[in-house]
Amino acid sequence: MRVGFLQTSPRRLQREANLLEVDGLLAGAPAADLWVLPELFSSGYLFRDREEAEGLAEAVPEGPTTVALVSWARRHRSALVAGVLERGPSGRLFNSAVAVDASGLRGLYRKVHLFGTEKGWATPGDLPFPVLELAGARVGVMICFDWRFPEVARTLALAGAQVIAHPSNLVLPHAPEAMVTRALENRVFTITCDRVGSDEAGGQRVSFIGRSRVVGPDGEVIAEGPPGDPAVAVVEIDPRRADDKRVGEANDLFGDRRPDRYRL
Amino acid sequence: MRVGFLQTSPRRLQREANLLEVDGLLAGAPAADLWVLPELFSSGYLFRDREEAEGLAEAVPEGPTTVALVSWARRHRSALVAGVLERGPSGRLFNSAVAVDASGLRGLYRKVHLFGTEKGWATPGDLPFPVLELAGARVGVMICFDWRFPEVARTLALAGAQVIAHPSNLVLPHAPEAMVTRALENRVFTITCDRVGSDEAGGQRVSFIGRSRVVGPDGEVIAEGPPGDPAVAVVEIDPRRADDKRVGEANDLFGDRRPDRYRL
Repeated sequence: MRVGFLQTSPRRLQREANLLEVDGLLAGAPAADLWVLPELFSSGYLFRDREEAEGLAEAVPEGPTTVALVSWARRHRSALVAGVLERGPSGRLFNSAVAVDASGLRGLYRKVHLFGTEKGWATPGDLPFPVLELAGARVGVMICFDWRFPEVARTLALAGAQVIAHPSNLVLPHAPEAMVTRALENRVFTITCDRVGSDEAGGQRVSFIGRSRVVGPDGEVIAEGPPGDPAVAVVEIDPRRADDKRVGEANDLFGDRRPDRYRL
Repeated sequence: MRVGFLQTSPRRLQREANLLEVDGLLAGAPAADLWVLPELFSSGYLFRDREEAEGLAEAVPEGPTTVALVSWARRHRSALVAGVLERGPSGRLFNSAVAVDASGLRGLYRKVHLFGTEKGWATPGDLPFPVLELAGARVGVMICFDWRFPEVARTLALAGAQVIAHPSNLVLPHAPEAMVTRALENRVFTITCDRVGSDEAGGQRVSFIGRSRVVGPDGEVIAEGPPGDPAVAVVEIDPRRADDKRVGEANDLFGDRRPDRYRL
């Protein structure tokens, strides 16, 4: 199975330009069965206020971002997981991720752990952490700051995820390194797709750290993006490696868990 | 508060020599309020079989290792957390850690997640993950391979631990890096005390990686031991920093948790 990330450089509020950037990168990229794109890749990250976010929010799957993703899935015969600014039921806004393939929308996740200014416009996620059959693997989805909570990757891995797709707009340091721990403690593959550049709005400025990475079940970094520029990477992985939770001859990471002793 | 680790080089089955090594290191060390020693520091790690382990196992607190620890606590006016090969009720053996201060035994933890050959002689821990008032801080205790299970540090931090004392005999790589994640995801201090050298028994040989480290709540590495030699380090920390779980202005690592959404 070939998986990749598209580390882009979104322009705030410029959906057309952002969709075109991905269109161009995909046209020049090697083939992949699964692509991961950044969080909020078509809208940009920072909004002046809720009203500004509302102006760019889209229904799923009818909105232009999901439509573009499905069109790419058909053209490139691949599945994609990407962030989208979603207008949900009752006009609530969500920082969401969609999973699509050539058949259309396959999964929707609404970010559970909102970060910083997102709390000003987004509603915390109200859907389960999803694990779906996608491109021949069981793919779990989480978004950006979810990395900081070990419960998220754990929940996905216990539900059977072999690969965790992780659209991100990373601001804090440490996240790329922590994803090694997330992969290792669950023996799964992780694909973090970050953006680069910065957003400025409402007197705030946020810069993003790039460094998208694919990590394997032994904590090995298989691919990494640079800190400051857009980048595309595709690597071959065998998702079945994630089904083997053994560590040495005597241990099994899931079999050795002692939920009766945890107080969570 | 001053905390330190004593990265030693135990000789298998040579309890007297191992206690003397610590005695000498402590005599030449700067003062500390809390010392962490390696897992099984007085017995060595690898045993030919259960019988060999049994020959070295000790009652707690009557056995020579805990007696030595309390004597050091009195002489050096410090608390200590250290691994001990424990003979528990009904003759069961545990890979344990004791916490002592000048008043005597303060806490006992029996390793919950046994690693490799330990499963041949030790009974999995049957006590809660302990958090105790020690040297003026709330100190949680876990042992070595417990690092691989995020639930352990999380359980300790949720129970109020400001500092996690982590006696270890690290064999696998990645553990020192993963402790950065453990500190960061819980905003606590961690003190991993590893050993160096190697053990050989029953046709097996195990080498230990050193690299003891103290990590702070922002994931900063405050002190680190070398990979191949005994080492002593003492650093000043303010454990109250671990009471502040905020990340930026809008987030709180514990307040933002969503246990209703986790499936653990």
